[in-house]
Amino acid sequence: MSNHVTTSTQLHDYLTAARPRQLDELKAWLRLPSISTIPAHKPDVAAAARWLVASMQQSGLEHVELIETTGHPLVYGDWLHAGTDKPTVLIYGHYDVQPVDPLDLWITPPFEPTVRPGQGYRQGGDELFARGASDDKGQTFIHIKAVEALLQCTGSLPVNVKFLIEGEEESGGRAIAEYVPANTAKLAADVCLISDTGMLAPDQPVITYGLRGGWSCEITVTGPAHDLHSGMYGGATHNPNQALCELLAALHDPDGRITVPGFYDHVQELSATERQLLAQVPYTEAQLLADTGAPAAYGEPAYNVMERIGARPTLEICGMWGGFITEGFKTVIPSQAHAKISCRLVPNQDPAEIGRLVEAYLQQLAPPTVKVEVRSRPGTPPYVAPIDSPAVQRAAAAYQQIFGVAPVYKREGGSIPIVTQFQAALGLPIVLMGFGLPDDNLHAPNEKFYLPNFYKGIETSIAFLQAYGAPA
Amino acid sequence: MSNHVTTSTQLHDYLTAARPRQLDELKAWLRLPSISTIPAHKPDVAAAARWLVASMQQSGLEHVELIETTGHPLVYGDWLHAGTDKPTVLIYGHYDVQPVDPLDLWITPPFEPTVRPGQGYRQGGDELFARGASDDKGQTFIHIKAVEALLQCTGSLPVNVKFLIEGEEESGGRAIAEYVPANTAKLAADVCLISDTGMLAPDQPVITYGLRGGWSCEITVTGPAHDLHSGMYGGATHNPNQALCELLAALHDPDGRITVPGFYDHVQELSATERQLLAQVPYTEAQLLADTGAPAAYGEPAYNVMERIGARPTLEICGMWGGFITEGFKTVIPSQAHAKISCRLVPNQDPAEIGRLVEAYLQQLAPPTVKVEVRSRPGTPPYVAPIDSPAVQRAAAAYQQIFGVAPVYKREGGSIPIVTQFQAALGLPIVLMGFGLPDDNLHAPNEKFYLPNFYKGIETSIAFLQAYGAPA
Repeated sequence: MSNHVTTSTQLHDYLTAARPRQLDELKAWLRLPSISTIPAHKPDVAAAARWLVASMQQSGLEHVELIETTGHPLVYGDWLHAGTDKPTVLIYGHYDVQPVDPLDLWITPPFEPTVRPGQGYRQGGDELFARGASDDKGQTFIHIKAVEALLQCTGSLPVNVKFLIEGEEESGGRAIAEYVPANTAKLAADVCLISDTGMLAPDQPVITYGLRGGWSCEITVTGPAHDLHSGMYGGATHNPNQALCELLAALHDPDGRITVPGFYDHVQELSATERQLLAQVPYTEAQLLADTGAPAAYGEPAYNVMERIGARPTLEICGMWGGFITEGFKTVIPSQAHAKISCRLVPNQDPAEIGRLVEAYLQQLAPPTVKVEVRSRPGTPPYVAPIDSPAVQRAAAAYQQIFGVAPVYKREGGSIPIVTQFQAALGLPIVLMGFGLPDDNLHAPNEKFYLPNFYKGIETSIAFLQAYGAPA
Repeated sequence: MSNHVTTSTQLHDYLTAARPRQLDELKAWLRLPSISTIPAHKPDVAAAARWLVASMQQSGLEHVELIETTGHPLVYGDWLHAGTDKPTVLIYGHYDVQPVDPLDLWITPPFEPTVRPGQGYRQGGDELFARGASDDKGQTFIHIKAVEALLQCTGSLPVNVKFLIEGEEESGGRAIAEYVPANTAKLAADVCLISDTGMLAPDQPVITYGLRGGWSCEITVTGPAHDLHSGMYGGATHNPNQALCELLAALHDPDGRITVPGFYDHVQELSATERQLLAQVPYTEAQLLADTGAPAAYGEPAYNVMERIGARPTLEICGMWGGFITEGFKTVIPSQAHAKISCRLVPNQDPAEIGRLVEAYLQQLAPPTVKVEVRSRPGTPPYVAPIDSPAVQRAAAAYQQIFGVAPVYKREGGSIPIVTQFQAALGLPIVLMGFGLPDDNLHAPNEKFYLPNFYKGIETSIAFLQAYGAPA
């Protein structure tokens, strides 16, 4: 344990002794396959929500409730006895997880949590492999266990806390988007704390001050009314697979710049100061290649990899399919070809406008030989926070205290849709304090969580709550 | 029945009475799902071969044998009592069928043969819906039933006949390619008759004098070593789906011409005579659009649709897939993307050379950000026959006799790999006498066979055998 721990001896001893139990509890939660985007997993998502309710109650939280929605349930709980003169911290997380395919690439099954020793720069600590280990059950659990530890050892908390945990973060987040604006009094707080981001390395914490927004859609290209024999009609019929490739290939120029007219019109360019600050993040092209295993980096030459990921918008083909895609061979011209497209957006791009631009460009490119259909999904606006706010500075102090190192500040490529919704509905500062690592394999096979950071995360959460509750 | 039937009254009455039984037998064969390209269907392919053996024996053929191979069985049978002064006709067909996906588009299940009244230009006759109805169980069965009818009514055949029926036509045809050159004495004949092609309309027979060859491959594009979160790495990593689209989109120019360097080098241009003859085929762009349901025709402007299909080579994406392709959404950059490519070749393109050219061009186009792997499959050379051979002219006479109309001559877009193998190994003329229709939905959902042509096909086969056996 770090030399910088300032919790009492009793708390220190409690945390050391509690580790095996905390890990066992997290494993139990991870065994529930709460994949929110796959309808067949709805009962599993509900089971994960019920597990969370029981766990929060056991940890000493009050008014714990499972809130039914038209989609997956929300879970709320609070502890409000710090006094009206003390601030209130709203803690957000999500208990749903991403799908697990391709399943055959998992070394151990995604819902059988398994501990293995860390490799490479994670040597010296164990890692917990399971879908959701890092994103976001593990990181959500950090704060529940922090509250439990304080209540067990001191009988109270230095601040009032409210938890709101959702089950649709990976599938659109409709329920929480409706719930938050309708329950502003219940959720009123002084700061919102979210752990759904990462660190740079086991000993280098990060405060994420910017998140990309998102817009996504499904594209269907239809040519012939039914599948055709490629020999009988090939050469005189536009193959929808080919037409889709031609459309999608036209969306980037050779430098990786998106060609959709107007796409970059509202992109806020990085200031010189921000570029300097981002340049301090020790994340290089070499590290990117080591993390991903890709043969070479890609993207806009005018921006370094950290800027491309955090400060530039993207357009990705997350899935595509058409024709005969199983073992064997079939000489077919399919009737349809399909793609799932996801855009990451940066300030000040508007998801609805981006959707209109992409769809208009696709329709403009579409040849008369096929019909192109674009089905938009709900989007998320991008987010940037002021780095010098008191909330962010207290999080930095907590990190410094537990990890012995000041955090760096970065913009992250992912989206956390709730961030802009909390800002808009509740008008409070957001702190994105992450404990994941770059190679946690989020959304991929072999997702994992570096366990030393799970335990240090609990200490950091305690330090943050204590800092927030200390007299100004 | 046509006015031009010249079979004896006894044969005429026999054929009329036999129709319900012939249809029931064909249905029984069609119920066996002999999909040769899908390993799980191997037992079904074997069952279809055994069914054929029994059916050929019952029809009066002799020396009927199921020939085991390293793949699916061949079936042989003959009747050799016409006399040594009479010619021998080798009849080829295949009992394997294409896969049936997408299954949900079938109106009735593919392996529950169902008769429904014909629509549109097929009004007035019933159609039999099942996978393999036209391609090629139905067309193969025509000749077995022709032989049976002659043997039943006359006790003999006007010529010697040999049948060689394969079970791998839809999956590479390796077994027959090995068997034919090794058994040239057993298979020796004066002409080879194949019904695996089509007519233009119910009353317009066609003799196909050219077939396209083929070459196919599977392409894998690999970027990162594992799937990545599109938010965390998007913008700095080349998405393999995108890279595959960019590669595949570069293989055609906007006019539909294939861009692979050298691809057209050995393409034999159509002669003026051939273009005139093909121009007599009443197959228009309007008919193509009616058959396919495509919104507009595609392809090289310098060639009409019939020329594009029959006389020009093609490169088709028969299947492609990558990333998240099921219900829901996953913001992923996949590690790999895949495509199945099929080229149709015309004289004098060499499949092996085309394979080398396509692979070299793909590797030349491949950016440093991904790795491209091309796995070639065995190819088939293209075929063109002389229209004025005695064999072709006798087939024309048989068509004229039964349908009351002279056939037109066309080149077909599909490949029948065995045609060039028979030519090379046995040195005999080939007659491609088809009874399918353009909208038979070959290789697609709702494959069907227009039953009046099944019955007229039996009469035409009889007329052909009689013409071949008549004194010169």
